[in-house]
Amino acid sequence: MKLIDGKATAQTIREELKTEVAALKDRLGRAPGLAVVLVGEDPASQVYVRNKIKACEDTGIVSKAFRPEASVSQAELEDLVRRLNADPELDGILVQLPLPRGLDSQRILDLIDPAKDVDGFHPVSMGRLTLGLPGLRPCTPAGVMELLRRYDIPTKGKKAVVVGRSNIVGKPMALLLAQPGVDATVTLCHSRTRDLAAECRQADILVAAIGKANFITADMIKDGAVVIDVGMNRTEKGLAGDCDFHAMKDKVAAITPVPGGVGPMTIAMLMVNTLAACRRRMGLES
Amino acid sequence: MKLIDGKATAQTIREELKTEVAALKDRLGRAPGLAVVLVGEDPASQVYVRNKIKACEDTGIVSKAFRPEASVSQAELEDLVRRLNADPELDGILVQLPLPRGLDSQRILDLIDPAKDVDGFHPVSMGRLTLGLPGLRPCTPAGVMELLRRYDIPTKGKKAVVVGRSNIVGKPMALLLAQPGVDATVTLCHSRTRDLAAECRQADILVAAIGKANFITADMIKDGAVVIDVGMNRTEKGLAGDCDFHAMKDKVAAITPVPGGVGPMTIAMLMVNTLAACRRRMGLES
Repeated sequence: MKLIDGKATAQTIREELKTEVAALKDRLGRAPGLAVVLVGEDPASQVYVRNKIKACEDTGIVSKAFRPEASVSQAELEDLVRRLNADPELDGILVQLPLPRGLDSQRILDLIDPAKDVDGFHPVSMGRLTLGLPGLRPCTPAGVMELLRRYDIPTKGKKAVVVGRSNIVGKPMALLLAQPGVDATVTLCHSRTRDLAAECRQADILVAAIGKANFITADMIKDGAVVIDVGMNRTEKGLAGDCDFHAMKDKVAAITPVPGGVGPMTIAMLMVNTLAACRRRMGLES
Repeated sequence: MKLIDGKATAQTIREELKTEVAALKDRLGRAPGLAVVLVGEDPASQVYVRNKIKACEDTGIVSKAFRPEASVSQAELEDLVRRLNADPELDGILVQLPLPRGLDSQRILDLIDPAKDVDGFHPVSMGRLTLGLPGLRPCTPAGVMELLRRYDIPTKGKKAVVVGRSNIVGKPMALLLAQPGVDATVTLCHSRTRDLAAECRQADILVAAIGKANFITADMIKDGAVVIDVGMNRTEKGLAGDCDFHAMKDKVAAITPVPGGVGPMTIAMLMVNTLAACRRRMGLES
């Protein structure tokens, strides 16, 4: 069994980025800039935002934090996004989700300039992904693709099964795996799938993005499969993935641990997206 | 075996639309308007455009045809699209593809106001489809969904296999079948799929959009499957679908013929989209 070490890979990417960011800064006279918007005081969101700001510091990207109170009005938050869109030194805008009740997330996300949509959640970004056009990709599925590439995991003609049909992971993941050049045959499973175990057992590559601790058991995995676990579930025993890592680890060809698998890659890809957005906005090749 | 009669269903939809268009015309003082742009003299495109204009006439939608010569420049064609975007009496804009060589289709399609994107090919339309947001859907997969609904074909928990990963059919089709409420478990197959026959044999619902006459043979179909054939291939013996209709017709639960299956639905859904675009643009519920 090969452990797919997302933490180490993310660190490698950060080192690569450090060099690229420095070179870009020399060329442009400024570093790429990322706006991070955190509304309210949600503790989990605060941790995520802190990690993202830390990743910016590590790579040389300038982060600017905006922290409206939970009582901010829809109109005020929309005004903030418009100001960030107009700021020439900001290349990326990240609005940490979920927003407090009463705020319309979709309207906020729709307002972000697609050129600065480093989360890849804007309809234009998602449409360009679906159409196979260049653009900013959602960070988690982009991170999974990067792990597959860097670990030389073959995908062409392989059977990939994605469990979970979220907008953030499952759907873009399925589309990325099916695109020409990647060429997996992709099955998208979800809560209404009739025989999930039978579907999973067909997978050469299984991507689990369900949000239930240890939901995918060892008997649902084909011998020699590659397992990518996107789950991050709090349990009494600590963080657990969607896959029963210990039960399946001697059966698989490769697997991501939780934590230290896909999680760190998500933040690394946010940095990659911010650099790419900066290059594209400045008219450099991306 | 039940024959899924797309021609009759399309006719029913046209009749329904006629009533709705007339009511909308009474309310707005004008009928919905569709701009149809045909560049050059491609004979197949001329037939398609003629059929679309005819469908407008049948349903009471006002069509306006624009026929630039094949020598039109990119800039001139873009100007035309901008004028059509600005015309308040046009609710839909259809640019017949393929465009002659030398013209950049993607830039033209990107320029169409998403509110008027009745073909559903704009990145915003495709993104909204992927995200499960309301919007204009590509006509062919929307037509397939409409056939499944009107023929009461159950989809929840069923296994759907889509063969072909085009932007116009395969990818949006897979996404529509997987969306909540439809709830099929969807496998997207393509030219790099290793064992296509084995994938197809699992299908409760098979959608073929490959473009090769009789490519899907009877032995690739499970007994009692529902087969939707999007293919339209010219052969020596006339039009043929992607599925070997005659060989599999006694094996399936239901099947679309070619011609007379999905084809007429595509044009009917273009009319549905034009009406929906009109309603939405005029601030009426869609």
